[in-house]
Amino acid sequence: MAYNSIILRLELNHAKVNFGDVASIISKAGGDITSIDVIRPGQETSTRDITVHIADKAEALIVESLRQMDGIQVVNVSDSTFLVHLGGKISIQPNLPIKNRDDLSRVYTPGVARVCTAIHENPQKAYSLTIKRNMVAVVTDGTAVLGLGDIGPHAAAPVMEGKAMLFKQLGGVDAFPICLDTKDTEEIIRTIKAISPIFGGINLEDISSPRCFEIETRLAEELDMPVFHDDQHGTAIVVIAGLLNALKVVGKRMEHVRVVVNGIGAAGVSICKMLLAAGVKRLVPVDRDGAIVRGGNYDYPMWQWLAEQPQVEAESGSLKEMIKGADVFIGVSRGGLLGAEDVQKMAPNSIVFAMANPKPEIDPEEALPHVRVFATGRSDYPNQINNVLVFPGIFRGALDCRARRINEPMKLAAARAIASVVSEKELNDQYIIPSIFNEQVVTKVRHATIEAAILTGVARRIPPEFR
Amino acid sequence: MAYNSIILRLELNHAKVNFGDVASIISKAGGDITSIDVIRPGQETSTRDITVHIADKAEALIVESLRQMDGIQVVNVSDSTFLVHLGGKISIQPNLPIKNRDDLSRVYTPGVARVCTAIHENPQKAYSLTIKRNMVAVVTDGTAVLGLGDIGPHAAAPVMEGKAMLFKQLGGVDAFPICLDTKDTEEIIRTIKAISPIFGGINLEDISSPRCFEIETRLAEELDMPVFHDDQHGTAIVVIAGLLNALKVVGKRMEHVRVVVNGIGAAGVSICKMLLAAGVKRLVPVDRDGAIVRGGNYDYPMWQWLAEQPQVEAESGSLKEMIKGADVFIGVSRGGLLGAEDVQKMAPNSIVFAMANPKPEIDPEEALPHVRVFATGRSDYPNQINNVLVFPGIFRGALDCRARRINEPMKLAAARAIASVVSEKELNDQYIIPSIFNEQVVTKVRHATIEAAILTGVARRIPPEFR
Repeated sequence: MAYNSIILRLELNHAKVNFGDVASIISKAGGDITSIDVIRPGQETSTRDITVHIADKAEALIVESLRQMDGIQVVNVSDSTFLVHLGGKISIQPNLPIKNRDDLSRVYTPGVARVCTAIHENPQKAYSLTIKRNMVAVVTDGTAVLGLGDIGPHAAAPVMEGKAMLFKQLGGVDAFPICLDTKDTEEIIRTIKAISPIFGGINLEDISSPRCFEIETRLAEELDMPVFHDDQHGTAIVVIAGLLNALKVVGKRMEHVRVVVNGIGAAGVSICKMLLAAGVKRLVPVDRDGAIVRGGNYDYPMWQWLAEQPQVEAESGSLKEMIKGADVFIGVSRGGLLGAEDVQKMAPNSIVFAMANPKPEIDPEEALPHVRVFATGRSDYPNQINNVLVFPGIFRGALDCRARRINEPMKLAAARAIASVVSEKELNDQYIIPSIFNEQVVTKVRHATIEAAILTGVARRIPPEFR
Repeated sequence: MAYNSIILRLELNHAKVNFGDVASIISKAGGDITSIDVIRPGQETSTRDITVHIADKAEALIVESLRQMDGIQVVNVSDSTFLVHLGGKISIQPNLPIKNRDDLSRVYTPGVARVCTAIHENPQKAYSLTIKRNMVAVVTDGTAVLGLGDIGPHAAAPVMEGKAMLFKQLGGVDAFPICLDTKDTEEIIRTIKAISPIFGGINLEDISSPRCFEIETRLAEELDMPVFHDDQHGTAIVVIAGLLNALKVVGKRMEHVRVVVNGIGAAGVSICKMLLAAGVKRLVPVDRDGAIVRGGNYDYPMWQWLAEQPQVEAESGSLKEMIKGADVFIGVSRGGLLGAEDVQKMAPNSIVFAMANPKPEIDPEEALPHVRVFATGRSDYPNQINNVLVFPGIFRGALDCRARRINEPMKLAAARAIASVVSEKELNDQYIIPSIFNEQVVTKVRHATIEAAILTGVARRIPPEFR
């Protein structure tokens, strides 16, 4: 059930109705009053804004109930979610004011010419004298937005803006949304390369599979800056972080567990790769047609790659068959695929990450009695696997050490850093992963990312604290 | 002569030197102390930051003189122009903080999905629910930056960032710099179209001629939003504004004057077009090979277009020949083309706008005795013709009425609005154009732009005050 806030502007006729009546109507119709602002007080009538927390469908009932009451005029109903989006969610701010002609001649002509010339003579100075140092493009073509699918670049913008907010608030990273009016792989690559000079990194977002693989691989090769497809790697990193801690809770080791990953798209492929990098020896990737098996032949290059890995099992079967005896289930597929009977067949002390959104692969209420550690992508259950834990810190680190790329060791270091925020003492079934509001997350992820970048030789700058 | 500020960090040994000595050395070497900050006071030594205003070449002499003095240690020399550019000049700010999970679920998943869906169902809602409403791309390929020429996209960035600062501070417009790593006309057009969904307008900047014409024309046709090449139209609008007032000062009329425009590139073409639209009947466009004459044949389509206009003179000749008897000279070419003897041959009460940067077409000291109204692009003489007077207001207006394009009537209205800021009473030889810090400018340009957009049917929204 999704929740939302609405703001009701009501005009009350004091002779006919009192506020207690209003509160009671709202409460009966399923609303929860969270604040009241008197907009216009008055002797006979008064106007108030009443903020009400409601379940998704309760709005019509509340408004109808209020309208039927004599003495209440419903002036307006606003939706707080839409209100926060009005006019967009980010803006451009000058870093200093231009107070007079002297300021102007420094930030603009004629003074700026000397700065331009300095960069022309040494392009690396773009990193110190322009916004490149701290600016990331959040790029989408709008083809795989949240659970909504191919809704196009305009409709994808609110997600990219939200991401830019999180980049800034959590990581201090400036991020600008680029929403592409093309779905052509080559044109996307060409466009991002063409606009790259002002950016210090590229965060790819909500681009559908399999184009996302080609786009990311090519850009990482052809651009001399970090390129990171968050749907793949952000998700994979936070899954590995959660799994590292879940394995501690159940007392199993990465080398011994049998792991089923269901949904081998963008996120699933990256999760499989990271599981192998983290030491998993028994991996079962499953998609709509059943297990992807060692030695099989597949059209998708990524599936073919998996079929060639010695750690991938050779036995074929459906998801319901493959999950039998598994220690770990990781779902990045779609809702309602599994029932209690399926997770009951897993090995003892099972770990289930059911991350389909908004409906997990198995209903949490069904799964919880039979699973030792259960996690979802949702915020209304414990153990939320959320890639907001990853991108602010990993980009903060990559930008601070001017990394040429974000490589596998950096990703694994980031996963370990996230896991390490939950101390041995705090760790339990219900708490394997920190909150995104935990301030240690970005600090630790940044530090681990920079350390791994320096060790693997992709850092072009050593931040002072690492010297 | 260009000026600059440097900041000298000096450690002074009080036994050997006092501050009076320091001030005297700096002053003798040509520096002007504007501020002193004591960084570390002390009994024997103290450290101070001394900000010094200097002519461009004086830095070496000042530093050398200080170093030779016993008791002074030059710790560091910073350049204030470079200091303001450190880390770039703009940043991305969230419009509201994400304080808790409730906020997060509104600006990001899951709440944002409803906003995305609303835009998917009606793309026009992108104008109310995303940053599109107020966001302009400042796009360059770095081929014609200031007087520096083709310095590339990285080196062009500081100018674009400066422009974004001015957009915000003067017009409240959010602007983001896009520096393109391509010079190919078709690829530039394709790239801008591909990234257009997040923007409400496109400001083209410092793209060399003749590609700039094709790029602007095609984008204006193919995108449903304002596209404005500032080097062309910003310059033309402010020239027309200045000319409207200059003609009032000398008591001549647009219909009667003979106007020589020298330098028929991006700005020159647009100036010629606007002069014709403003009613000029005797126009003499001149480039390196002399006058472009009515009936002539030219390779550049824009020159050919001029040759077909009835108001363009048929007589051929060099610049020095054509300027004889002219009422108005407008130069957007290069420095030092004309001497006192040339402007002396103009008609009485002559008007000269010598806007080549940094060196005007004629030395101001040579011109001033022989010209009635003299203007340049520089801030160190009266009557600065500066396109900062144009772009904040015209985009503010175009965005507020959601204009489909910026057409000729809107440009002419903007020019008249700028001219109108100088009242009849204030108007004189030395004051034909307002300062860019005059707050009336943006307000009046915005109003005139919207009015013209509504009248010509390109406004898609009528702002409240026009209803």
